[in-house]
Amino acid sequence: MKRVLAAAALALAFSPAFADEGMWTFDNVPSQAIKAKYGVTVDQKWLDKVEAGAVRLTGGCSASVVSKDGLVLTNDHCVRSCVQQLSTSTNDFIKDGFLPAKREDERLCPGMQAEILEGITDVTGRINGATAGKTGQDFLRARDGAIAAIEKDGCKVREEKYRCQVISFYQGGQFQLYTYRIYSDVRLAFAPETQIAFFGGDPDNFNFPRYDLDFGLIRLYENGKPAATPRHLIWSTANPRLGEPMFVAGNPGSTSRLLSVAQLEALRDIAMPDTLIMLSDLRGQLVQFSAESPEHSRIAAATLFGIENSFKGNRGRFETLLDPAMMSAKRAAEAELKAKVKADPKLAATTGDPWQDLEAIAKVRATLERPYTWLEARAGFRSELFDYARTLVRGADERAVPNSERIREFTDARLPLAEKGLLDARPVYPDLEKALLTWWLTKLRENLTADSPATKTFLGKESPESLAAKLVASKLSDPAYRKALWDGGKAAIEKSDDPMIRFVLATDAASRAIRKDYEEKVISPTERATEKIAHARFAVYGTGVYPDATFSLRLSYGAVAGWNEKGTAVPAFTFFPGLYDRATGKVPFNLPERWVGLKDKLNPKTVFDFATTNDIIGGNSGSPVLNAKGEVVGAAFDGNIESLGGDYWYDGTVNRTVVVTTAALTEALKKVYGQDRLVKELTGK
Amino acid sequence: MKRVLAAAALALAFSPAFADEGMWTFDNVPSQAIKAKYGVTVDQKWLDKVEAGAVRLTGGCSASVVSKDGLVLTNDHCVRSCVQQLSTSTNDFIKDGFLPAKREDERLCPGMQAEILEGITDVTGRINGATAGKTGQDFLRARDGAIAAIEKDGCKVREEKYRCQVISFYQGGQFQLYTYRIYSDVRLAFAPETQIAFFGGDPDNFNFPRYDLDFGLIRLYENGKPAATPRHLIWSTANPRLGEPMFVAGNPGSTSRLLSVAQLEALRDIAMPDTLIMLSDLRGQLVQFSAESPEHSRIAAATLFGIENSFKGNRGRFETLLDPAMMSAKRAAEAELKAKVKADPKLAATTGDPWQDLEAIAKVRATLERPYTWLEARAGFRSELFDYARTLVRGADERAVPNSERIREFTDARLPLAEKGLLDARPVYPDLEKALLTWWLTKLRENLTADSPATKTFLGKESPESLAAKLVASKLSDPAYRKALWDGGKAAIEKSDDPMIRFVLATDAASRAIRKDYEEKVISPTERATEKIAHARFAVYGTGVYPDATFSLRLSYGAVAGWNEKGTAVPAFTFFPGLYDRATGKVPFNLPERWVGLKDKLNPKTVFDFATTNDIIGGNSGSPVLNAKGEVVGAAFDGNIESLGGDYWYDGTVNRTVVVTTAALTEALKKVYGQDRLVKELTGK
Repeated sequence: MKRVLAAAALALAFSPAFADEGMWTFDNVPSQAIKAKYGVTVDQKWLDKVEAGAVRLTGGCSASVVSKDGLVLTNDHCVRSCVQQLSTSTNDFIKDGFLPAKREDERLCPGMQAEILEGITDVTGRINGATAGKTGQDFLRARDGAIAAIEKDGCKVREEKYRCQVISFYQGGQFQLYTYRIYSDVRLAFAPETQIAFFGGDPDNFNFPRYDLDFGLIRLYENGKPAATPRHLIWSTANPRLGEPMFVAGNPGSTSRLLSVAQLEALRDIAMPDTLIMLSDLRGQLVQFSAESPEHSRIAAATLFGIENSFKGNRGRFETLLDPAMMSAKRAAEAELKAKVKADPKLAATTGDPWQDLEAIAKVRATLERPYTWLEARAGFRSELFDYARTLVRGADERAVPNSERIREFTDARLPLAEKGLLDARPVYPDLEKALLTWWLTKLRENLTADSPATKTFLGKESPESLAAKLVASKLSDPAYRKALWDGGKAAIEKSDDPMIRFVLATDAASRAIRKDYEEKVISPTERATEKIAHARFAVYGTGVYPDATFSLRLSYGAVAGWNEKGTAVPAFTFFPGLYDRATGKVPFNLPERWVGLKDKLNPKTVFDFATTNDIIGGNSGSPVLNAKGEVVGAAFDGNIESLGGDYWYDGTVNRTVVVTTAALTEALKKVYGQDRLVKELTGK
Repeated sequence: MKRVLAAAALALAFSPAFADEGMWTFDNVPSQAIKAKYGVTVDQKWLDKVEAGAVRLTGGCSASVVSKDGLVLTNDHCVRSCVQQLSTSTNDFIKDGFLPAKREDERLCPGMQAEILEGITDVTGRINGATAGKTGQDFLRARDGAIAAIEKDGCKVREEKYRCQVISFYQGGQFQLYTYRIYSDVRLAFAPETQIAFFGGDPDNFNFPRYDLDFGLIRLYENGKPAATPRHLIWSTANPRLGEPMFVAGNPGSTSRLLSVAQLEALRDIAMPDTLIMLSDLRGQLVQFSAESPEHSRIAAATLFGIENSFKGNRGRFETLLDPAMMSAKRAAEAELKAKVKADPKLAATTGDPWQDLEAIAKVRATLERPYTWLEARAGFRSELFDYARTLVRGADERAVPNSERIREFTDARLPLAEKGLLDARPVYPDLEKALLTWWLTKLRENLTADSPATKTFLGKESPESLAAKLVASKLSDPAYRKALWDGGKAAIEKSDDPMIRFVLATDAASRAIRKDYEEKVISPTERATEKIAHARFAVYGTGVYPDATFSLRLSYGAVAGWNEKGTAVPAFTFFPGLYDRATGKVPFNLPERWVGLKDKLNPKTVFDFATTNDIIGGNSGSPVLNAKGEVVGAAFDGNIESLGGDYWYDGTVNRTVVVTTAALTEALKKVYGQDRLVKELTGK
């Protein structure tokens, strides 16, 4: 089937998107195409209403406001870290669910911020003006300096409750200032047992038919009280119908559909195998760590889920990269664009040969990727203590220089969120920290070799195990200590005898050096080259194309539909009885206690999960799935296995979004969890 | 540097091997080339002498007889499983070394058999006669039937102490009957602490400079007494010299230098990434398992080493597969051969287009590889209990049918070794078994999906964890129980209520079915195609080429030499003081207690490890490294990182064999271990 579509994709790859392809920015929604295909009018009023209720969560998820008192629907897996952080060894909400009896029992999710888009302003000209003629570090510094200034200016006249963020589209072809209303006090209002939210676990992840109640409710607070959100979206309890038009409004994290062939090949040959090897190694380690004791299983739960999810997703992407049909479609599209550029002498002169540049960069990247990964990009590998120490050490250095000269994580516009992430109280698990640090240092040595200067800088005469054991003695698990160091700045940092602070002080120069090198030789020239391709593409195809995903608000459209999987029809819907049929009683196909025996109580006709043709990607997790009226009929929580190739292209015959219905959530809140209070708030009944 | 060589390799890839390339069968050694390059006369007498002292170990290693009383030199890592199996939780020879005070304390290595080649007979005609005109399963059955008959015939008139094995060369272009004198009573005579044998551990594996005393001594026994081995090789205590000619006589396991481009691409895109993902996952799991307790570390040691070694080796191979220079050299060589075939109408007619066949097979293979891997080829994944059960269940079935109709593991010629492997007593570690079985079943489900019929056959309603817990209750750890079932045949098996036996009985049909399918659609047509290519290659280039490695006796020649690694000269030798400089005191750069403080006692001029240009590969571990006189000057134990590409081509500028000197072994046996008895036996002094 894929081959048939390949031919179509080939012909249409960079002409205006066909079928249900596209994650459209709200200022460029193809309303005519939607009207023509589905008969639905998506006008400015419709878009404004949806935009007002669509939420971005800083952890990398999407959500929607679904009550006037700030209640927000997202996925359980989007609040899983929070659920785990609120748990203790004797009170495990991952296992038992988080079911507060009243609003007053709702609890702060550490580090989480909710953001609602309020405005978009094009700032491409200002950025381009600042970077004109610059290359390498100069280019990046100029661009980041301009971004820092624009973000600061944009929110200057506003209150603290706004965030201004410059977002890049079309690989640097366009820059927009997105202004968000922010809520930095976000509290957990409800989470089911992870076992029903993620029924079938890793084996069923990215699969369909599916039986997951993957939802969680959080609430926005202001001044210690539930926020008033009169512009919330309407919670529907109607079943979706086959063929019914559906819209997803969320923040797809990242796609790679506009990458050049050289970039795709580098991904396929180097970055992706390395990533899969790294993730499977850590997965194996964490699986065994979790098997050691119930407490280890509890404290590693969110981390292991993240690793497994990432591994499975990347494996699917890798298979698409190996698909000759995909790659030849990309080659043909690139050849077509090149030919059109060549045919226009003026365009050819301004474009040059950025594809050739990207080929050359891929070779350089191959030599820098591993040091950059292990010393900088993935340093500490999810160790909270390391992240705290790095934020403190770098934060002290960076705050001492002007806003426009800082590395991008510490510009004025970003400091509040960085500070929140640093200072919010949350548990740190020494056993898990030690395992992660040992693993990271072992892989650092393995990938850079025992004799490399960098390995010697990081390890000295220690082994990964002995060094990790010393580092976890850090006091940075104490938020008060972190605050003292943050407020004390460079002087306090330099005086600190904390082992993790000392470690980062001793190694950060090496990390910054490889970062600088990588930015100079890889990131900067890549952005310069892709920017040129973007401009060429605009010149040739106009703006009827959508940009790659950049964790910014997008609308996708489609319809409820099953698909044909290698000759077998996969239905679009699942129902509660199917859950009970699939349950074996053994992990991960076991039911939480509350669910056992309820088969006959739950409405067998309520749609549980369903599939749609919408074009989405990771980051869309928790996105509201909306009917033609813009009412919430579900929360997107997954794509099928075939959707993983969506990183590179969209294949409407098999690419499916997977959704849990608000109808099923309502049924479960009532009959399984007895949450009449929440049901009333959501439905008015 | 590699690119320069690529051009040379391109021109010469299939003409007579140049430089020091080649793992030559003893009946086709390029004596003239050796004489011309190194001035050494390698005549029949020299070869006969070396052949008589060269040993193959059934675990997958090489070795050499070095005393008249059957003492055999190999690597520590070749006897590591044995050392571990002889250990207990209170007596850990891996940690402390195995140092028997007298011969009577030497102990049987379970399952190990030593084999010395005594004759080679060409049987190509007989095999080809049996398979003429056959395809698919018919072809394989006819070929395997003919092999079974030839092997049985070949050893019919001999005593039990011979083994006859038909070995394929040149991808099916040639079949030879190799007759071995066998020693099935092999005892451990000496092993150092693994920490000095494998100093630097995984980080230093495949690296050089190196400081590893990677040797072990075993002894051949006959009738309960040390075997008389008057034709042993001479143990030299002289240091090797820079540029000195060196010969390696051993059993390289497998290379892929004659694979077609389609086969190499399938390796690169499918088999190799899957293998690396699998190995890194299991490695992560075993690393954490080992970290749980000293006892877990002890029982998992040999398994973890095997996995780490395999991972690192395959990662190096993968990088070579991604090297555009290698692949384009292969493409050019293939194009040249195809052109020459096409230019000869008669040859073209008999050859057909086997390259095209291999391309088609690669596509089929992509769909069958995972089920074949998880249900058959890697089933049980190193679980001893599973292997015992499968041997028992299949052995009972197969012994009930005529020799020529059996699957190849159970032909008459192979039964004695299968029986020895099954019945020798050795420890089974339930914790490790449970971890390995859980892992295997988890990966089986992951790779085949939870809903595949095969997953349902293997798991039923169990989880991998719950099923593994049931299976490790097996009594197959008891050799007497295994013997009773082996002797009792099918009736005893079917009556057994052992959970592992029941499990294999319930699943073996599924395993055999995928094996049959894979043999029919992948193995058989592949062998048919590669056989055609081999004949074409003979017709075009004659027999001045060497065959790919097939774990059969080969001679390689070369000289002591360092190399230039990206601009840095790597010296050819290491010495004892360098060991002490590299020791940090932390695992894996720590010294065993016996070694601490001996720096000044050990001769600083004795060469410890050294590098040569010899062309070797895994399986050569333990091979004697011989000087011009055919004396043993060391045991090969590794290749450098660059040698890993040797699976696909030989690059003489950087490909190096890594050797521990007999001079260093002598020094250590005397001064560290006080083994005057062994030194006297080896040196006469």
